[in-house]
Amino acid sequence: MAEEEAVENKQVILKHYVSGFPKESDMEIRTTKTQLKLPEGCLGAILVKNLYLSCDPYMRNRMRKMEGSYIESFTPGSPIGGYGVAEVLDSTHPNFNKGDLVWGRTTWEDRSIITSTESLAKIQHTDVPLSYYTGILGMAGMTAYAGFFEVCSPKKGERVFISAASGAVGQLVGQFAKLFGCYVVGSAGSKEKVDLLKNKFGFDNAFNYKEETDLNAALKRYFPDGIDIYFDNVGGKMLDAVLLHMTFHSRIAACGMISQYNLEQPEGVCNLMCLIAKRIRMEGFLVFDYYHLYPQFLEMIIPQIKEGKITYVEDIAEGLENAPRALIGLFSGCNIGKQVVAVTRG
Amino acid sequence: MAEEEAVENKQVILKHYVSGFPKESDMEIRTTKTQLKLPEGCLGAILVKNLYLSCDPYMRNRMRKMEGSYIESFTPGSPIGGYGVAEVLDSTHPNFNKGDLVWGRTTWEDRSIITSTESLAKIQHTDVPLSYYTGILGMAGMTAYAGFFEVCSPKKGERVFISAASGAVGQLVGQFAKLFGCYVVGSAGSKEKVDLLKNKFGFDNAFNYKEETDLNAALKRYFPDGIDIYFDNVGGKMLDAVLLHMTFHSRIAACGMISQYNLEQPEGVCNLMCLIAKRIRMEGFLVFDYYHLYPQFLEMIIPQIKEGKITYVEDIAEGLENAPRALIGLFSGCNIGKQVVAVTRG
Repeated sequence: MAEEEAVENKQVILKHYVSGFPKESDMEIRTTKTQLKLPEGCLGAILVKNLYLSCDPYMRNRMRKMEGSYIESFTPGSPIGGYGVAEVLDSTHPNFNKGDLVWGRTTWEDRSIITSTESLAKIQHTDVPLSYYTGILGMAGMTAYAGFFEVCSPKKGERVFISAASGAVGQLVGQFAKLFGCYVVGSAGSKEKVDLLKNKFGFDNAFNYKEETDLNAALKRYFPDGIDIYFDNVGGKMLDAVLLHMTFHSRIAACGMISQYNLEQPEGVCNLMCLIAKRIRMEGFLVFDYYHLYPQFLEMIIPQIKEGKITYVEDIAEGLENAPRALIGLFSGCNIGKQVVAVTRG
Repeated sequence: MAEEEAVENKQVILKHYVSGFPKESDMEIRTTKTQLKLPEGCLGAILVKNLYLSCDPYMRNRMRKMEGSYIESFTPGSPIGGYGVAEVLDSTHPNFNKGDLVWGRTTWEDRSIITSTESLAKIQHTDVPLSYYTGILGMAGMTAYAGFFEVCSPKKGERVFISAASGAVGQLVGQFAKLFGCYVVGSAGSKEKVDLLKNKFGFDNAFNYKEETDLNAALKRYFPDGIDIYFDNVGGKMLDAVLLHMTFHSRIAACGMISQYNLEQPEGVCNLMCLIAKRIRMEGFLVFDYYHLYPQFLEMIIPQIKEGKITYVEDIAEGLENAPRALIGLFSGCNIGKQVVAVTRG
């Protein structure tokens, strides 16, 4: 019986640990076979069909050998893992039933057996695109929400700068800040993204950092009176320049440093003395510490999505065979909006 | 009458703005004449005899031309300014009377006319050394108190690292942390200072950073389980190394970056990505924001001094003619403990 149910299972395999800029060829597609039922004796687990997979910058770090980090390295020779949306095909776990839709940590393959189900949440609202649970209704949304409201301590009327502003997190931070009553400017890496920021996400202004020969001059142009909140997704040179423009008692939420992830040696940030003279609070955070806020976040965001007050742009790659390219593309800014992989439609 | 009262007034003059490492010859001693009374019509002012002057690292920044800083540059050709202890010789200000002892902002000369009296506090407790109001009972004491208790959010049993630990602020932070129930290690730049830390100030341990070829190895040795609180007085390479050893949800109080003040271009700090993975809060602060806590600070510290629970080491240079050397010495770590200039004894 089980034999007959064996079906093809496409996987995205990390071939080896990666140093420097990752390439598509650091991964490979492998096709194995899986069953459509959990193996006998596999208790407290679920078998899922993966629907959408999330491409996130932090995954770069999992491609290298790390110790003592908050998250483990991928295992060369095995499928990589990440956040995704999936449908339960079989369950021996009391909290999950066949047919449930879930989001949380899964593996990059057609079907995954998940034995650590702590990260999984059942999807209750299905009248929004399911892919949203890889982004606005998932980790990116919670990151933007907790980062802006909990870490940045915003006040109405404050001046907010966001780097990588059209990305999965940045586009939401900007919209939250606008709804909250802030002045918001974002940076991004192409004209198309800058247009999105200004015309679709309602930022007060935006600029293409690649076209600015002098970041200081650019920041001075958009923030003649300084920056009260910097939501940092990129680190490096932009962070260094921004430090010079922060106001007294301003805040920096260190969310990501994507400009640094592929460097063998991170760039040095020279202007940290500004922290003292300007009494700046710079705080790193991880979304994992804020999931207790998820219910209140959903309560806020679902109506805002339905009423069109918040919009979300996704860049969806079709099929696992295109997943490595989609993931790598994050690091050269190929994606416009949240990068998702649709494993299978429906 | 006024003519007859004219007396010699020695001054420490900044000759020109300074770049790079400051030298004694960037200053000069000038002798002028002053009266022992305020000039006619000089209202809301006081004339003081300066008793003790405080040498503080932040004064380096005032030797360069700055704009938009929290504090103004010195004026070349004029006496430099800073914190000190003084006796009121004459007053046209309703809050001050002849004979009052005050501490706060004054100028480096025998006698100063002070028209901005906002920074001055009258000294109530005179049963402790008056020079203490340049340090433990003045700005350094309040910096240590506010920095440790307000910025570091300490918890009993936490592991605290302090750089420049035998300095005016560091020696107090360490003692506060010990009394509070923390494990405390400090770094300093000589064997004599390390001995002070261990034997006089009661630090759990201390090391001479100049003798460590590998700061990482040193930090690993003293903090095998990581650092919960870093009280940073030096910035630069030490900060970069410390970032690697901070624990999850740890805190860095950025109090000073003396290693950087004399560099034309500050060193880059490369390990800021640790802020994110470890959710570190790094916060710059200035004592000026915390003076409302001064009464409660005094209430705590005066008994501790009298009971010998807190000790304070000063390095006192005698006479204004030795003041330039004392100030410059801060930047090569010549001072052992708080550097003070005794203008006149008694």
